[in-house]
Amino acid sequence: MATVKSMRLIIPLAIVQIVFLIIFGIKIEYHETAKPVDTVKPSIVGGLYPSFQDVHVMIYIGFGFLMTFLKRYGYSAVSINLLLASFCAQWAIIVRAAISGNWTVGVMEMLTADFAAATILISFGAVLGKTGPLQLLIMACIEIVLAQVNEHIGVHILHTADVGESMFIHAFGAYFGLAVARVLYSEDIERASGKEGAVYHSDLFSMIGTVFLWLYWPSFNGGAVEGDQQHRAFINTYLSLLACTVTTFIVSSLVDKRGKFDMVHIQNATLAGGVAVGTSAHMPIQPWGAMLLGTTAGIISVLGYKYLTPLMASKLRIHDTCGVNNLHGMPGILAAIGGAVAAAMSSKETWGDSLYSIFTAMEPTMMNTTMTTNAMTANVTEVMGRSAMEQGGYQMAALCLTLAIAIVGGVITGFILKIPFLDNPTGDLLFDDTDQWNIADEGFPNSGELPLNGKSGDGKSRDDTQM
Amino acid sequence: MATVKSMRLIIPLAIVQIVFLIIFGIKIEYHETAKPVDTVKPSIVGGLYPSFQDVHVMIYIGFGFLMTFLKRYGYSAVSINLLLASFCAQWAIIVRAAISGNWTVGVMEMLTADFAAATILISFGAVLGKTGPLQLLIMACIEIVLAQVNEHIGVHILHTADVGESMFIHAFGAYFGLAVARVLYSEDIERASGKEGAVYHSDLFSMIGTVFLWLYWPSFNGGAVEGDQQHRAFINTYLSLLACTVTTFIVSSLVDKRGKFDMVHIQNATLAGGVAVGTSAHMPIQPWGAMLLGTTAGIISVLGYKYLTPLMASKLRIHDTCGVNNLHGMPGILAAIGGAVAAAMSSKETWGDSLYSIFTAMEPTMMNTTMTTNAMTANVTEVMGRSAMEQGGYQMAALCLTLAIAIVGGVITGFILKIPFLDNPTGDLLFDDTDQWNIADEGFPNSGELPLNGKSGDGKSRDDTQM
Amino acid sequence: MATVKSMRLIIPLAIVQIVFLIIFGIKIEYHETAKPVDTVKPSIVGGLYPSFQDVHVMIYIGFGFLMTFLKRYGYSAVSINLLLASFCAQWAIIVRAAISGNWTVGVMEMLTADFAAATILISFGAVLGKTGPLQLLIMACIEIVLAQVNEHIGVHILHTADVGESMFIHAFGAYFGLAVARVLYSEDIERASGKEGAVYHSDLFSMIGTVFLWLYWPSFNGGAVEGDQQHRAFINTYLSLLACTVTTFIVSSLVDKRGKFDMVHIQNATLAGGVAVGTSAHMPIQPWGAMLLGTTAGIISVLGYKYLTPLMASKLRIHDTCGVNNLHGMPGILAAIGGAVAAAMSSKETWGDSLYSIFTAMEPTMMNTTMTTNAMTANVTEVMGRSAMEQGGYQMAALCLTLAIAIVGGVITGFILKIPFLDNPTGDLLFDDTDQWNIADEGFPNSGELPLNGKSGDGKSRDDTQM
Repeated sequence: MATVKSMRLIIPLAIVQIVFLIIFGIKIEYHETAKPVDTVKPSIVGGLYPSFQDVHVMIYIGFGFLMTFLKRYGYSAVSINLLLASFCAQWAIIVRAAISGNWTVGVMEMLTADFAAATILISFGAVLGKTGPLQLLIMACIEIVLAQVNEHIGVHILHTADVGESMFIHAFGAYFGLAVARVLYSEDIERASGKEGAVYHSDLFSMIGTVFLWLYWPSFNGGAVEGDQQHRAFINTYLSLLACTVTTFIVSSLVDKRGKFDMVHIQNATLAGGVAVGTSAHMPIQPWGAMLLGTTAGIISVLGYKYLTPLMASKLRIHDTCGVNNLHGMPGILAAIGGAVAAAMSSKETWGDSLYSIFTAMEPTMMNTTMTTNAMTANVTEVMGRSAMEQGGYQMAALCLTLAIAIVGGVITGFILKIPFLDNPTGDLLFDDTDQWNIADEGFPNSGELPLNGKSGDGKSRDDTQM
Repeated sequence: MATVKSMRLIIPLAIVQIVFLIIFGIKIEYHETAKPVDTVKPSIVGGLYPSFQDVHVMIYIGFGFLMTFLKRYGYSAVSINLLLASFCAQWAIIVRAAISGNWTVGVMEMLTADFAAATILISFGAVLGKTGPLQLLIMACIEIVLAQVNEHIGVHILHTADVGESMFIHAFGAYFGLAVARVLYSEDIERASGKEGAVYHSDLFSMIGTVFLWLYWPSFNGGAVEGDQQHRAFINTYLSLLACTVTTFIVSSLVDKRGKFDMVHIQNATLAGGVAVGTSAHMPIQPWGAMLLGTTAGIISVLGYKYLTPLMASKLRIHDTCGVNNLHGMPGILAAIGGAVAAAMSSKETWGDSLYSIFTAMEPTMMNTTMTTNAMTANVTEVMGRSAMEQGGYQMAALCLTLAIAIVGGVITGFILKIPFLDNPTGDLLFDDTDQWNIADEGFPNSGELPLNGKSGDGKSRDDTQM
Repeated sequence: MATVKSMRLIIPLAIVQIVFLIIFGIKIEYHETAKPVDTVKPSIVGGLYPSFQDVHVMIYIGFGFLMTFLKRYGYSAVSINLLLASFCAQWAIIVRAAISGNWTVGVMEMLTADFAAATILISFGAVLGKTGPLQLLIMACIEIVLAQVNEHIGVHILHTADVGESMFIHAFGAYFGLAVARVLYSEDIERASGKEGAVYHSDLFSMIGTVFLWLYWPSFNGGAVEGDQQHRAFINTYLSLLACTVTTFIVSSLVDKRGKFDMVHIQNATLAGGVAVGTSAHMPIQPWGAMLLGTTAGIISVLGYKYLTPLMASKLRIHDTCGVNNLHGMPGILAAIGGAVAAAMSSKETWGDSLYSIFTAMEPTMMNTTMTTNAMTANVTEVMGRSAMEQGGYQMAALCLTLAIAIVGGVITGFILKIPFLDNPTGDLLFDDTDQWNIADEGFPNSGELPLNGKSGDGKSRDDTQM
């Protein structure tokens, strides 16, 4: 039977899972098209379900394997990812239902639950190897609520567009996670840097995650929309990723003193193009516009891994295990700016009625106060909605709100996670599966020569340790 | 040129493959919608093909990689899985055509062929590492026939519902395989237990299989139905898996003396929720009902791995390499019971006409003996079909029949596989690729320290061998 | 900052990527259905996008991981594959637009861009480990143009059918790559053969690529067509692969002196069935016809790996790292012959009007010279299009043209790649990631016992080095 320490995880997790079950039992119904009907009707799931499955692969294979790069943290990366996402998806269905008042579940809710889980998995990347499962589950409980509230304000109150949720998921998840990481910083983390690197095959496992994320990103950005918006989202995301990938290789070689490539850059910065086009993917930003966003994201992201991440760790004491600032944070901000610029430059002439389906608040509305008396002679006044510039301003406002809620929420959450009886790993247990797992026979690969406790390497730059 | 021993595999396999080719040549035609037509018409494959591909990934990546956990049996796991499934799919198309009398092949037949292969791959899990390819192919020849006959009786004679085939595939495959494993049991297997464990990276390869199975399970349970039934199957399976996954982590930690997680549980028990909801996934069992099935499956499955599997090996001499009893067997029985209970509680009031499309035998039928004479004055008698309780009874009857055919068929097959000139591995060749494969340079990973021949560990519980 | 040597890659690559961006900016527009419209209309992407995603997985996961089998070249295999394909996709969109005059991009263009990338990745397989990134990018620049011109001639001038592009992609890519490999041959390659093999886990990484290629091959062959042609393409490809897989195991065991299987055969020859049916997959060749092609391909491919590849290296000085001649070359020729035979045997009676939608040049055409005067009394002459035999001849002509352009183009490209200041790896840098990559901690797996510089093994046949 488990130890007292482990009961601190088991008991609250069991209670929460039972509460989930009860809430589902009392409140959640099937979506209208999933209820039993008199005759078998065509399901609405047709087009949506394949997109859901693509995103599903990104969340569980993509994020899970991307994080297996750590030489001694592969079990946790892929397994805790599975636990965390499964937990978040249930909680997100409840929280979203509570906010919207629509207590149903269908394929669309499964897709948005997976999206919601992504937010937390991005934060997980920032604190990878430095938090226990209980800490992560508490973080998830809080973050899901804040992220969903933020998204609700952004979409339904500020009326902003963010089709691939680069603001509401990527930037939010990254800065929330970094704020938590700042609060949880300890000297032990520096000392454990010898365990922070990869081994040859863990880098290949990580590439499974990278490539699946890369492949299905068009579905992430376009899965929830339809028609020409969806078609554009697929095209723009595809082109942005192509340009970003080539750029990543260029810059990775450029910043290395021997001109070599670095797997960390390939594993992560190649994906920044998907984030950077996420806000504007469904807008007619033109193919070259998508490629420009991707190119910029590739440059920013590699430079971030090379120069900013070490600096943030040493100067700001923000230790970012997976470099989420470079993959999700800065590219998320770039996406938001791209979306705001596109909004500010939009017009009815070039966008057609697409303008109003993308930016609903720009739609001209009728003053229909006097319309009821006599339609023929009514004093109809056409009231323009927001101007393009105003919409651009609202887009930036949504970004600022997102950053504010993420950072403040992350700091507060970080302090909550420091409550002593939680399962915060320290010393030898950092970046190490042995804290939570029974390890398979023969221990870790190549373990004979493992540079433990920071005696060699720093795990971030391989420039100096390898020929 | 190959040895005499290997010719015992090559010659029969070549003959059977030629026979397959001849039977296809004589009998099998394209499905109606795949025949050349006068004008290009929309294909019926639209909605079905993506579901087929999801299941296709489950069969070949999912099952194949799930079984790579053994440290020295990875080649066989993924490759013999490929051979076996390719062989079974052809045989299943023929056997199903012979039973139904409909000798055509189309995407639907590809899907059901993949389903049929799954049955044999589950049995493969029970005997993994303890059987040669010839034995497995003989097993497949017999098991495909028995499983298809059983399914035909269940669906077309007993008129039972089992949308994700938790009875006809999972329970059947598991208990057939366990019966074979019982007959093939030998003392050598105990002695070889040192090879039965994983190494660190083989556990990660295995997780590729786990996660893809987990992801696409909704397509497995809902791929072959349409409309609201399909939508419910997707939702119920998704929710069941979420609840099952969280539960698996809870119970895995709970039963460990140090409160740690065990990769064996994560790799397998997280999937039990997909099995447990398989019979009733398309029924309106409500979201909480699906989650309750998933939760129960997670508990049963982890407890099975922890306590039942070692007991079955030591007391009953049933050695279950992959623990298929815990992943497919007991959850399959749970699914059958769940389906029977749902059937018994079903009613026209709450299920609408869905009731009759799910349980066809419950549909009221007209006595039309006297209808031909004069429709206006006919003595029409409405005869009710089965009652809900009766349908529940038939569901349980289908389970019992499945278990009976599986166990009896498995025992007989086991004795056939013991015929001496077959390729039954013994001693050092158990759980070892060297029996069938030319091994790559440098042999097995970490092989220097490999605890061979049971000198250490037992490969099932890592509690005592790891810090 | 990077070295002078690396600048030789960085500067031209950066320039080309900027040129791509400019060309896209000036010329490329969204496809008609992706332009902003007045009302949201159903997108045409519905059925096409899932097929695109399947092919997308094949290109980036399939080819990328298939080539990770080399023990010290895994980073390059999966990462340079990503770079090369991303580069080729952009270039292919431009080249195809220039040839067709249709400067738009949509999901169909994304699919054909991925197809175009496949051609270059096949050639990459022939020169894997023996070329630097700059050489590969130059090769890609030339090969994309030649391959697209060849395909354009084949489809639009010779009016041939090649639905899965077994001629235009597989045969072209293979023989182009082999011609390059012949020109680049050096004695160093023989000496480096100790690095050419796999290690146990690199073989498993490779199987990820194999199985995903195998699974999604029906989408490759049928993704771009519709209706009954698509349905047949799915069925024929599926059946061909099943038969090919079983055959591969038979022949692999047959040609081994101990009767064991060889992972090289399983990783590659199992896929030859997908290539072999590629030209005729949409034709009504009957299920048994598809299986016969698959069976033949499996035999040819394994025999090629066993006997032809070593012979080509020693006698012809054509060193084929991945054995693309066996997987893409010979099966591609087989596919072309299969297509020609099917064409020669086709008739209006058995194929219906499908005949004319598959072979457009066979359609009877009206002499409408006199039709304009008076339709009622017009001297309408029905002029038959090509006969079946003629179409068969044209199919063979397309194959010959493909081989000619591929081989001549490859030889010329090979000489271009020998320009001294390019990044041609030699000596210890052959088949080794250290040339281009910063390697993770602890270097390569099992590196202590690595047989460097050809001191042991030959990497191709494991017969003699392993028990």
